[in-house]
Amino acid sequence: MNYKMMGKFIGRILLVEAVFMVPALLISIFRNEIESIIGFVSGMIIILLLAGLLLWLCGNSSKSFYAREGLVCVGISWIVISLLGCLPFVISGAIPNFVDALFETISGFTTTGATILSEIEELPYGMIYWRSFTHWIGGMGVLVFVLAISSSGDSKSGFTMHLLRAESPGPKVGKLVPKMKTTAEILYSIYIILTIINVIFLLIGKMPLFDAVCTAFGTAGTGGFGIKNDSMASYSPYIQNVCTIFMLLFGVNFSCFYMLLIKQVKSVWKDEELRFYLGTVFASIVLIAWNVRGLYGTLEEAIRHAAFQVASIVTTTGFATTDFDLWPSLSKMILLMLMLVGACAGSTGGGFKFGRLLLILKTIKRNVQQVLKPQKVQVVRVNGRSVDEKILENTNAYLAIYVIIIVVSCILIAVDEFSITTNISAVIACFNNVGPGFDAVGATCNFGSFGYFSKFVLMLDMLAGRLEIFPIFILFLRDTWKHR
Amino acid sequence: MNYKMMGKFIGRILLVEAVFMVPALLISIFRNEIESIIGFVSGMIIILLLAGLLLWLCGNSSKSFYAREGLVCVGISWIVISLLGCLPFVISGAIPNFVDALFETISGFTTTGATILSEIEELPYGMIYWRSFTHWIGGMGVLVFVLAISSSGDSKSGFTMHLLRAESPGPKVGKLVPKMKTTAEILYSIYIILTIINVIFLLIGKMPLFDAVCTAFGTAGTGGFGIKNDSMASYSPYIQNVCTIFMLLFGVNFSCFYMLLIKQVKSVWKDEELRFYLGTVFASIVLIAWNVRGLYGTLEEAIRHAAFQVASIVTTTGFATTDFDLWPSLSKMILLMLMLVGACAGSTGGGFKFGRLLLILKTIKRNVQQVLKPQKVQVVRVNGRSVDEKILENTNAYLAIYVIIIVVSCILIAVDEFSITTNISAVIACFNNVGPGFDAVGATCNFGSFGYFSKFVLMLDMLAGRLEIFPIFILFLRDTWKHR
Repeated sequence: MNYKMMGKFIGRILLVEAVFMVPALLISIFRNEIESIIGFVSGMIIILLLAGLLLWLCGNSSKSFYAREGLVCVGISWIVISLLGCLPFVISGAIPNFVDALFETISGFTTTGATILSEIEELPYGMIYWRSFTHWIGGMGVLVFVLAISSSGDSKSGFTMHLLRAESPGPKVGKLVPKMKTTAEILYSIYIILTIINVIFLLIGKMPLFDAVCTAFGTAGTGGFGIKNDSMASYSPYIQNVCTIFMLLFGVNFSCFYMLLIKQVKSVWKDEELRFYLGTVFASIVLIAWNVRGLYGTLEEAIRHAAFQVASIVTTTGFATTDFDLWPSLSKMILLMLMLVGACAGSTGGGFKFGRLLLILKTIKRNVQQVLKPQKVQVVRVNGRSVDEKILENTNAYLAIYVIIIVVSCILIAVDEFSITTNISAVIACFNNVGPGFDAVGATCNFGSFGYFSKFVLMLDMLAGRLEIFPIFILFLRDTWKHR
Repeated sequence: MNYKMMGKFIGRILLVEAVFMVPALLISIFRNEIESIIGFVSGMIIILLLAGLLLWLCGNSSKSFYAREGLVCVGISWIVISLLGCLPFVISGAIPNFVDALFETISGFTTTGATILSEIEELPYGMIYWRSFTHWIGGMGVLVFVLAISSSGDSKSGFTMHLLRAESPGPKVGKLVPKMKTTAEILYSIYIILTIINVIFLLIGKMPLFDAVCTAFGTAGTGGFGIKNDSMASYSPYIQNVCTIFMLLFGVNFSCFYMLLIKQVKSVWKDEELRFYLGTVFASIVLIAWNVRGLYGTLEEAIRHAAFQVASIVTTTGFATTDFDLWPSLSKMILLMLMLVGACAGSTGGGFKFGRLLLILKTIKRNVQQVLKPQKVQVVRVNGRSVDEKILENTNAYLAIYVIIIVVSCILIAVDEFSITTNISAVIACFNNVGPGFDAVGATCNFGSFGYFSKFVLMLDMLAGRLEIFPIFILFLRDTWKHR
């Protein structure tokens, strides 16, 4: 294990985290929120001291770095930035309980959006900003950001590839361009531009600037922390529709946007994952709008709420315009299943991903074909290209470990004696980084009533979900820490 | 597709089904139940006419028979015996509604034990006997029975192998002895002997003979149709404990019993699946007994009910001694998870099977090891022997299709607007051939309130669960029916 290299990298990430706190600090100063100022300044001092210590201790490091180190490094980085990212909440007294503050911060960075707060509007502005900003950082990934801004010297060692692979969602990480640093830069550029466009559209709808920026952070990261107690219910239909469209956009594989930029419109149009994703979204909206039509005055309203909730759940954002826990069972089942699938690979959304589901379905079809026509060799193809058997194998193993984590987590949090629906939907909502679930964790409720043990289980689920399991899972294996 | 061979085989199965109705007819005559006598006699006449027609039409058939035909043959056979097996219920007026009677019969043959009846004790004796006997036939498999009694001429063509593979549960079908016919004979001999021992133990506990025989049928087939409205709650603790032990025994891979018979005690003792199964059962009993200790007067009672329910659920039997829907959430979650796993491969139990779960866990471990030590080639071993990669691949594909069927079924039956808990547990209980679920399909409730559409979905789930998906799944593929 190359501890020095890892330490150096984590030190750099902490520097970035401290810098990321500056806007929140400025807002606190501007709004004259004394506690928040103290919270951010002390938090930044602690983070900078730790960063300095790590960089000083691990200054000279060798370059040898393997997949194992990449996974461990990502896993630890996320835990460390969460542990330190919650300091402003605790020190300022906005969320005095450390476990709750940690839960909220992990929920932010992992873009889950599950909250332990019941009165969000009582938070100081600086804190609301920081809470929403964690979504934006976590959406594309803080390590990817560090890669994008760091000197390109590291990219020779395979170091960056291992890191980007570990932090980016999807069954395989497509390099957009041969150089990883450039890939990270392109991804962040698209991300920033889309976020700015989102803010502009919200401002056109007369949303206040602060609200627009925070909402755009939650949308871009597919996070879902609202800044109002009723999430998005009190905003105008125009603003709700803007959110619907941008949530869906941020659930698309970012390589599709890159393809559009370099004018390969045809390959975007023919992308099987994108078609599968949009087709499912459309079908779900139609079904749910039909199912809930009686609950709303007009068809427009039924379609608007159906579309918003579908977009919010399928992209694992978690905003809400209505209490969908009161919807009929069919609509709730559809939402629960959309939670499981999640968005597209290579997007900021969580969940199992449409890309993986596509591979699984094609593998099943292949295996059935092999029974029907044993003499014919069958290859799985996506977008016309054959998929490597190793990727198919890993995707199947991913499904297996995915199911097992959900099952085990459900049993563990059952110690708090909530209903079966609460347990299952809480785990699915956290593990898939959605946010709200049903029943006691429904859209109008929060996770505050769970015990410490369950909160820790759900925090691990959120981290495992955001990092696609392995970077967190590997931390618990004895073999990981053995010297070779 | 070799339709003639299939027709001939289904004809033979129907002959056996008609013969299987004789004991029920005799009981009806003995108890002077006129409607039942009419029901069984007319049912048998219709079945025999159909059987005769099939055997006459398909008398001369060629021997070429492939895996595809084997799967299709098994799928169709089970649907046909269910369609005809429900005739006595319908004709006698015991269950006048055809769909309900079909549901009850499929639930019987697939050893599910989910019922649409609320007043079981009002059924005539002949009908209660037939209802329980369907469990016993379905437990080991009617095709296996036909193989055991048929002339050995067929076994040369690969025909028997394909059939036994398709009907027997587990990731791979171990031939006990080289000849398939002998394997089928051995399996049925063990099955009959264990059933008789079960009856004797129940008689010692002063259970009436009729009750003992019907209960043993439900236990042996891991079915779970009770003959009392309160399932097993009103029987003595001794009888409940006998049931617990025999349910667990029938959940064991039958090859273990064969090993004991040929005195290979050591290989039984070291069998990884058996250890995994018994370990899980023991841990679940301890956890649940501790969790429900406050609900019962004595510790003995808590342990007895915990052990009974765990045995009943893990073996997918579905008997109940207490309304476990009233148990605390932790216990219910554990039971729900046990439902998913099911019993051992090669037993009469349903579900995913411990053997498959073992393979899945070992595959995950192997894949993680490959990340940690990429240079080392890793092989998955069970009981010291390496497992073929093809079996691992199929097991993973099985998990995928298993999850997808559960998800799709949950959405489909949600049209009836029951709660999420009801939907999920109804699908899991039917697909894994357990029987009772939670909430509206809990131990004291029944499936009668579902609509026709949902009942058909659940019937297909039961059949797909009992036959391990492919023999039913393949019937819906266009490719299956294409000529080569």
